[in-house]
Amino acid sequence: MKVVVIGHGSTGWTAATTLRAWDRKCEITVIDMKNYDVYHPCAMPYVIGGLFEDETAIIEKLNYERMKINFLRKHKATKIDRENRIVKAISLETNEEVDLEYDYVIIATGSKAKLPPIEGIREGKNVYALKWIEDSEKIRKAAENAKNVVVIGASAIGLEVATELAHRGIDTKVLVRSRIMRLLVDPDYGEIIVKLLEERLPKLKFLLGINAQKLVLNDEGYVTKVITTEGEELETDLVIAAAGVAPEVTLAKEAGLEIGETGAIVTDEELRTSDKNILAIGDCAETLHLVSKKPVNSALATCGVRMSRVAAMTIAKPGTLKFPGTLNNFIVPYIDIRVGSVGLTETAAKELGFETASAKIKTFDKPHYMPDKTDFYFKLIVDKQTDKILGAQAIGSDYTITNLNIVALALQKEMTFQELLEADLSYAPAVNETIYPVTQALEFIARKVLRKR
Amino acid sequence: MKVVVIGHGSTGWTAATTLRAWDRKCEITVIDMKNYDVYHPCAMPYVIGGLFEDETAIIEKLNYERMKINFLRKHKATKIDRENRIVKAISLETNEEVDLEYDYVIIATGSKAKLPPIEGIREGKNVYALKWIEDSEKIRKAAENAKNVVVIGASAIGLEVATELAHRGIDTKVLVRSRIMRLLVDPDYGEIIVKLLEERLPKLKFLLGINAQKLVLNDEGYVTKVITTEGEELETDLVIAAAGVAPEVTLAKEAGLEIGETGAIVTDEELRTSDKNILAIGDCAETLHLVSKKPVNSALATCGVRMSRVAAMTIAKPGTLKFPGTLNNFIVPYIDIRVGSVGLTETAAKELGFETASAKIKTFDKPHYMPDKTDFYFKLIVDKQTDKILGAQAIGSDYTITNLNIVALALQKEMTFQELLEADLSYAPAVNETIYPVTQALEFIARKVLRKR
Repeated sequence: MKVVVIGHGSTGWTAATTLRAWDRKCEITVIDMKNYDVYHPCAMPYVIGGLFEDETAIIEKLNYERMKINFLRKHKATKIDRENRIVKAISLETNEEVDLEYDYVIIATGSKAKLPPIEGIREGKNVYALKWIEDSEKIRKAAENAKNVVVIGASAIGLEVATELAHRGIDTKVLVRSRIMRLLVDPDYGEIIVKLLEERLPKLKFLLGINAQKLVLNDEGYVTKVITTEGEELETDLVIAAAGVAPEVTLAKEAGLEIGETGAIVTDEELRTSDKNILAIGDCAETLHLVSKKPVNSALATCGVRMSRVAAMTIAKPGTLKFPGTLNNFIVPYIDIRVGSVGLTETAAKELGFETASAKIKTFDKPHYMPDKTDFYFKLIVDKQTDKILGAQAIGSDYTITNLNIVALALQKEMTFQELLEADLSYAPAVNETIYPVTQALEFIARKVLRKR
Repeated sequence: MKVVVIGHGSTGWTAATTLRAWDRKCEITVIDMKNYDVYHPCAMPYVIGGLFEDETAIIEKLNYERMKINFLRKHKATKIDRENRIVKAISLETNEEVDLEYDYVIIATGSKAKLPPIEGIREGKNVYALKWIEDSEKIRKAAENAKNVVVIGASAIGLEVATELAHRGIDTKVLVRSRIMRLLVDPDYGEIIVKLLEERLPKLKFLLGINAQKLVLNDEGYVTKVITTEGEELETDLVIAAAGVAPEVTLAKEAGLEIGETGAIVTDEELRTSDKNILAIGDCAETLHLVSKKPVNSALATCGVRMSRVAAMTIAKPGTLKFPGTLNNFIVPYIDIRVGSVGLTETAAKELGFETASAKIKTFDKPHYMPDKTDFYFKLIVDKQTDKILGAQAIGSDYTITNLNIVALALQKEMTFQELLEADLSYAPAVNETIYPVTQALEFIARKVLRKR
């Protein structure tokens, strides 16, 4: 059996190595335009923030010879010839063409940074979006002598870069046209995030409801000023574009594969595309949101890695694992606080027609008498019609992932708030709060909802 | 409606206050033999270890007048007269008798420390079991000038006291007749705990397979030496008895309530005893183990608190919440590491007739390239017949609760390992490992089990 994996990010890598772990015989070829083995994109903000000296710390050395994985570096896949089952590729060094026969193709072409339609944003030589490891290096170097930076947009990763730069002492202004991490947190929690980050980082300033109107470039093509929609002129040494990503589906589109309403490649529970011999995983693939049951294009690494595992199994052992969809369970660290969410926000739930009940809890991550306790915010959203949980948001210590993953399991099993109140959760004062924030929220909702019945 | 709560530990307290939150009118009386409001027993080892100056830090002030809860301090309940629906009590100060009419009684009489049948253990004036806050004070004061301490038994709490004392610089010897935390961790994980704790604490020494044979008392009645089953003589300034607890059911027994095979009071899903107007919660109550489906007497605070919530609801709003049983999900901190488990150990599962597959993972709590990563051990046990998860154990950072609570939810919903592999779990390098230890274990089990199908 011959398998061609197109793209060697975290998902292509995971798919190839998982497939090898399950099938020692199949021929695996991975194609990527770059030359490095693989790296950990989620750690790039820490390199920018100075936790590591440079990007080499987060690049992984692989032993593909030992694993018998054929790795075509610096090659670009140019066509998927479905009729003849051949992936055509070209060497970016020699222009030599390669034909790769396949039984299965795994498309893992990822995503590309979105650039908002603002004058000068495409031309400016010091406009960066943190997408590839090369971007990390560029931002890190540009930041070395920078005094001012403007961040356009408030995506989760954009805010990571913003907080890391502000933490390094650079005056950082974040232009937020509409909302903080719009798809991930509700406006009320966005406000808390803004407040907490500005309190922690004197060099960080959010400009809310304000967008960039125009970037002013100097003669060498570098942005020196950002003019806002309010007419304010912001001096800057570099610009971070933080408007999120869009799926990279050129190859799939040209091959005639079905593209969904999200702009990503349609996949089924086995991660097969409209061609059953072609699978798609990661940022370029569309899947279902498990709560809304609507198509979604999740750009989360965790979603991609889970897809990789299932895609490998679909090829090696069809039917043993399935990928029913995503909950967009995410966590992002901003200096000493973590922000996360899972499932639907209350805003999204209401837009979808759910009648929601929600609880907002401000508590600690540990019992109030513990000297090292810290503030903890938790919001839980429930469907009043079915009592089912819809989603949650949290801001606080590492304990956020505990609370949010509990909700993730509850969402996966479509649990009601009553059922989740039955959950047997462990406790020790040195580790966590006696009554979990998620449980405090459940108790609040129980009183709110059940009292009227 | 009149409700009498007998016992004012964490469960009695939670039941009374939860009931009040749901029902503003009912008459609530709480009876307790002690005089303090309420305290946090799980934090007592930290007082002994010196995190707090004394026990006052972990005593809670309550406003029972505002909550209109009638609190009979220094009173002992002497009889539950079921025929006339009266709880009889006596003042421990004045010997005055009180008759309390009831519609419901909640028995929350807790447990008592077990003392193993060793010569001198009952007589020794410096033999302590950490059960009540008075014990905490006694142990803390006895430890002030102590050079040597012998701990008899290896219960979870006994080991907390042992590690705290060793951490304070006292030579601490732990006699382990059979196994470390026998009901909670497997022998292989017990060995890891012993190794890690001895590495961290030069003053701590485990004597494995060795018990105390006799305690030698001086003329004043204080133990000065412990003679082991190997004939060794261990000098000691105090002795900690760490043989666990037994349910306190005297009152329930005398009232003719059904006592189960565990020695605790039989309860149903509403926490009602064999008399439907009498409920039992906490250490004195028997419930079901959700995995084994066998009766169990959980002495965990978390179990008691969950029971309290349901018991209050059974009275205030019958049928809205149920208590199907416990998973014995627990976590205990030993200096900088945490040990936890949930569900069945592999040993227990095998004894119950399960055909098990298990995975043992040694990894980190964060990605290997993160400077502050620490070792993380995780064990997962699965039923080969049904693919259902049976239990898990973990040793490591605070991240243990995240992994174990995920398993707790999976156990509650009787999930297979394939289903849990679908779980959408969040990730950020600063917070946790890319592939969760629980997921690594699931992948290992998937390969082990599915490859043969």
